[in-house]
Amino acid sequence: MQRNRVYNFNPGPAILPLEVLEEFRDSFMNFGGMSIFEISHRGKEFQAMMDETIALFRELMGIPPHYHVLFLGGGASLQFSMVPMNIMDKTADHVLTGTWSKKALAEAKIIGSPKVIFSSEETKFSRVPRPEDVRPNSDASYVHITSNNTIYGSQYHVFPDTGLIPLVADMSSDILSYPFDVSKFGLIYAGAQKNLGPAGVTLVIIRDDLVKRSYRMVPVIMRYSTHAEEKSLYNTPPVSAIYLVNLVLKWVKRQGGVAAIEKHNREKAAMIYDVLDKSSFYKTPIEKDSRSFMNVVFTLPSDELTDRFVAKAKEQGMTGLKGHRTVGGVRASIYNAFPREGVKTLAQFMREFERAQ
Amino acid sequence: MQRNRVYNFNPGPAILPLEVLEEFRDSFMNFGGMSIFEISHRGKEFQAMMDETIALFRELMGIPPHYHVLFLGGGASLQFSMVPMNIMDKTADHVLTGTWSKKALAEAKIIGSPKVIFSSEETKFSRVPRPEDVRPNSDASYVHITSNNTIYGSQYHVFPDTGLIPLVADMSSDILSYPFDVSKFGLIYAGAQKNLGPAGVTLVIIRDDLVKRSYRMVPVIMRYSTHAEEKSLYNTPPVSAIYLVNLVLKWVKRQGGVAAIEKHNREKAAMIYDVLDKSSFYKTPIEKDSRSFMNVVFTLPSDELTDRFVAKAKEQGMTGLKGHRTVGGVRASIYNAFPREGVKTLAQFMREFERAQ
Repeated sequence: MQRNRVYNFNPGPAILPLEVLEEFRDSFMNFGGMSIFEISHRGKEFQAMMDETIALFRELMGIPPHYHVLFLGGGASLQFSMVPMNIMDKTADHVLTGTWSKKALAEAKIIGSPKVIFSSEETKFSRVPRPEDVRPNSDASYVHITSNNTIYGSQYHVFPDTGLIPLVADMSSDILSYPFDVSKFGLIYAGAQKNLGPAGVTLVIIRDDLVKRSYRMVPVIMRYSTHAEEKSLYNTPPVSAIYLVNLVLKWVKRQGGVAAIEKHNREKAAMIYDVLDKSSFYKTPIEKDSRSFMNVVFTLPSDELTDRFVAKAKEQGMTGLKGHRTVGGVRASIYNAFPREGVKTLAQFMREFERAQ
Repeated sequence: MQRNRVYNFNPGPAILPLEVLEEFRDSFMNFGGMSIFEISHRGKEFQAMMDETIALFRELMGIPPHYHVLFLGGGASLQFSMVPMNIMDKTADHVLTGTWSKKALAEAKIIGSPKVIFSSEETKFSRVPRPEDVRPNSDASYVHITSNNTIYGSQYHVFPDTGLIPLVADMSSDILSYPFDVSKFGLIYAGAQKNLGPAGVTLVIIRDDLVKRSYRMVPVIMRYSTHAEEKSLYNTPPVSAIYLVNLVLKWVKRQGGVAAIEKHNREKAAMIYDVLDKSSFYKTPIEKDSRSFMNVVFTLPSDELTDRFVAKAKEQGMTGLKGHRTVGGVRASIYNAFPREGVKTLAQFMREFERAQ
């Protein structure tokens, strides 16, 4: 642990690799006599950095050539609207697995008549669907899922097969944390502030045929075709946020790529789930095959114990562990950049805290 | 001139004060054991910084209490849509003074039936309207203007009086560069990347009654009411961009506030316009009372001379002087942060270049 650095379990914005931050600090003033905040997005220097960032993404994620890689502003929440505006004809199928999928559904309802084809709300979102639970309607323009549910702590480990109906995924909180077949998806979007970089830039990966869909008058700024044609330079992109993403991608590559990252993520998550499974003190509300490797959510016997746990962990340099206000409990967000040592420290702390009761 | 710093005449993203960049470099890693990129937007530390930023804005611009100050993502281009979606009933009046006002009009046409009540397009946008040129239609939901036209180099020095019809202004390229009466406006928006900070955050100042307007179903993320009610925290805001804005505002305050900034801006612009007025070699296409203090646009007798001028200036450490491709010529963008010394250097260079022909 670097001096003056805490173990930051924040759910997002979240921890970034220390070496990326140091690289940013040492380089952001040196962009041809100006800083990264001052360079033109129409200049050669920015273009080279943007091209490199997209190429790195394509390489790390194995993105096929008929997919566009876009960097947009407005957050993943803007995608909740852009998706139905652009690619929903009359209806689309939504899978409800938590707060964010509900928000995506609410926005889709403003544009058309989406249907819910799976929901685990009755069991407090204790799981994501099994592949056989997802049966798309034939008139659905797409099926929308949330690959990882930050608040409830669940995650898909097998994606549904939606056949010819495009699968659309909000991957804000687990993108780049495991390898998967991008060609099984029509559209993927992700706010950067968990695994990719800082808040302020959103990644969109969209298949070429979906870019060309057009069912209604959409504001020019909200059209995927606008951003695809202009290669994310229709308007001024968040330059410095993209630069930080660039540095994060290079870090991922240095770690050995996404497969190596996944291995670390599985090992990190296992350290905490192992404590949970051996304990009758801690409980996790999520079914075993839906457990998230990014956000480990668990409860203690009482709110009072929970508060004490969070406060004591903070004293020991572990911050951001308080669960989301809608579910309570504890949440350990352990994204790609979260160090193994910090997870070990938490697991050890959990055992000691339980023993002391 | 700091070693390794050029005179950056970029139109936006644009120059920032060197001391702000240094302050950022020295502080961004020190946010309670994490960096500004990693702190939670729901935490006390961020909230204190956000509150301070808004308070500074209110103080520097004299924003009355019945106006909301919002920080949104998506750029000023997203506002081209959000404005008509939220506050246009059937029609609105648009004033066309350049590329950006045309873009705002195009987006408004997708939502309703805006009218053009003034355009200087026939004279290649050589001027902004005089107050008497702006006669709003009685059914207009608002009048939309662009206070400074970065590409053509024109700027309002007197704003039209639109009576009870709200005046809406895109102030992306001259916000905070002169004091003015905010209460004459219904809504003001501005991308940050000229006078406020880095690309990636947009300021919206909106009068309370306009927040409450509702004429159609608008996506939740696109409603001003959403962002006003949630105080810009409906979704994750661009945290680090807001922090940089915070530092810029403190810098403006240290300069003596917006009135002192305006004095500097007038003096800087006068140095270049003085060369233009005394020359028959350089020409400015903008009428005298519409000249911009932010972007000084001028032409040389031939494209070949223009290219030579830009190249030679670059050799001498002055970059970003090439005019926008749609108008050609030279453009010197001299926003708040642009140092007086740099303008002096350019004026001197202009005189020498002319003499050498």
